[in-house]
Amino acid sequence: MSLADSVLNGNPLALARLLTKVENDSPEGRAALDELFPHTGKAHLVGVTGAPGTGKSSLVNRLALHYRRAPNPKRVAIIAVDPSSPFTGGALLGDRVRMRDLAGDPGVFIRSMASRGSLGGLAHATAAVAQVFDAAGFDVVLIETVGAGQAEVDIARLAHTTLVVEAPGFGDDIQAIKAGILEIADILVVNKADLPGAENTERALRGMLDLAHPVAKIFRHHGQVMRVAGEEAQNAPLWLPPILRTVATEGTGIETLVEAIGRHAGHLRQSGDWVRRERARLEVELEALVTEALLGRFRARISDGRYKEVVERVVNRSLSPWEAAKVLLNE
Amino acid sequence: MSLADSVLNGNPLALARLLTKVENDSPEGRAALDELFPHTGKAHLVGVTGAPGTGKSSLVNRLALHYRRAPNPKRVAIIAVDPSSPFTGGALLGDRVRMRDLAGDPGVFIRSMASRGSLGGLAHATAAVAQVFDAAGFDVVLIETVGAGQAEVDIARLAHTTLVVEAPGFGDDIQAIKAGILEIADILVVNKADLPGAENTERALRGMLDLAHPVAKIFRHHGQVMRVAGEEAQNAPLWLPPILRTVATEGTGIETLVEAIGRHAGHLRQSGDWVRRERARLEVELEALVTEALLGRFRARISDGRYKEVVERVVNRSLSPWEAAKVLLNE
Repeated sequence: MSLADSVLNGNPLALARLLTKVENDSPEGRAALDELFPHTGKAHLVGVTGAPGTGKSSLVNRLALHYRRAPNPKRVAIIAVDPSSPFTGGALLGDRVRMRDLAGDPGVFIRSMASRGSLGGLAHATAAVAQVFDAAGFDVVLIETVGAGQAEVDIARLAHTTLVVEAPGFGDDIQAIKAGILEIADILVVNKADLPGAENTERALRGMLDLAHPVAKIFRHHGQVMRVAGEEAQNAPLWLPPILRTVATEGTGIETLVEAIGRHAGHLRQSGDWVRRERARLEVELEALVTEALLGRFRARISDGRYKEVVERVVNRSLSPWEAAKVLLNE
Repeated sequence: MSLADSVLNGNPLALARLLTKVENDSPEGRAALDELFPHTGKAHLVGVTGAPGTGKSSLVNRLALHYRRAPNPKRVAIIAVDPSSPFTGGALLGDRVRMRDLAGDPGVFIRSMASRGSLGGLAHATAAVAQVFDAAGFDVVLIETVGAGQAEVDIARLAHTTLVVEAPGFGDDIQAIKAGILEIADILVVNKADLPGAENTERALRGMLDLAHPVAKIFRHHGQVMRVAGEEAQNAPLWLPPILRTVATEGTGIETLVEAIGRHAGHLRQSGDWVRRERARLEVELEALVTEALLGRFRARISDGRYKEVVERVVNRSLSPWEAAKVLLNE
């Protein structure tokens, strides 16, 4: 039985081994991805992004517990891309203890991603790991990222639904961090909502949201936001990101958040965005693989010595970079 | 006379026209870059990066004025990549008025970069624009970026010297923003140092610096940081990023900052890092051009219809992305 078959049969040891091969981009990992690919496309990929200190790991933990304890429990995979996440081992003791809630549950699989050399590489590896979980039959894949750089935005783009997590006390600088992140937010979460300043954080987010989605403002001014963010959103052609308050450590607000995540999935399917996002994501992946293969062929054709020789001529200003590229491509 | 020749002769209108062609990556722009390239390699490229609200535009303005009013005035180019920069037109009236200090001075040229579709494209275009200024005989090229995402880090990597600008009130969240940025800082600036909290901001930066450069901590504990950050640094094999306080709106601390920038250039030249950074930068540029050309050839070979057909098979899960890449590459 191939490793991929064992994974499809639900063998957790085979899954762990395959994930390592996939992360390392080994030939065996690639072959297995090919084999698993026809079984993908069912999981709901949920990105959870936010600065360190916003409590997003506790939130991920609570979401996973909620899915597990539902009347129809879902299988949940967690991919922790944040190097400071307790899931990746960079945690305070309190966090580690909380993570035990999930330990030993065969319906939960936690995988932390080591940071790859290239940032694009990390996004690529995360996509591949998510595909394995999808094929292995996990219903929900929670992808936790720190939400600071382009790599995190790329990773968040993988997801069908992206949660952006804020917390009181981070308000001053929301604008600096969230410039790029807010555009990809499907749901905004004010976590640690029991702390003073939660009101301000929510107001700041709402202000930015109004800038990003002028329609949201008009709707709210007509007192309709609750309606739009409510059940009717399933039929609405437009998704207005709701702002929800949670206290993850206490479990407060988690049920409402899970409902919103479910509503967003419904919205994506009804509006056709689910398929559009899938297509866009697969196209990006295809282009990355084509680029990688083209560069690989190019490098195999040009010797290291010859490449260095040409670079040296560029450094000496006797060839421009563009002339050098043409020289190398025509050899 | 070619446009490139006019630029080399110091014609400002030709410069403006050429910059547009270069930004648009037109064939004429590319040909001019080839022509200008032998004349590059002299300018000092200085990156100035920081969150909105840290006052980095005022700082850039003050630095430019200082270079212009020195006994041996330097020619200064400013590239504003930050979309919220007053140099790009996204400013408050007060900022615009200040910018007038530089208006009408033929020794100063200000260019704002519109955000290109792809972020990599923006870094690429910024590199090309900096090359034109370099060839046109500008001594100092100040590159202002917002310092939030990977694109800004890429752009900052262009520079020989990178200033990371902070301001009081941004302290809480320094860690979230600066994770990647601090690694590329050659000089840390606490601007708005007359505001309450400047002390805290400096302390937070120093703490992060100690984590990033453990040697800095040892040096400081021996009371030697001022010496290392002082004139001897020119001979030191190691550069420890100094933390400097400024009040750009008043001109306070600008002279010390200009001195530190000059010292850093001296350090780069003496340590051999100047040439190493140039080589690394040109290699990245060469690789980007090779990749682009390879993808261009690939796209020319595969019809749009055929490409879409293969993408559709991936979306239908009848081909994996990797299988699809192989199919397309072997056609």
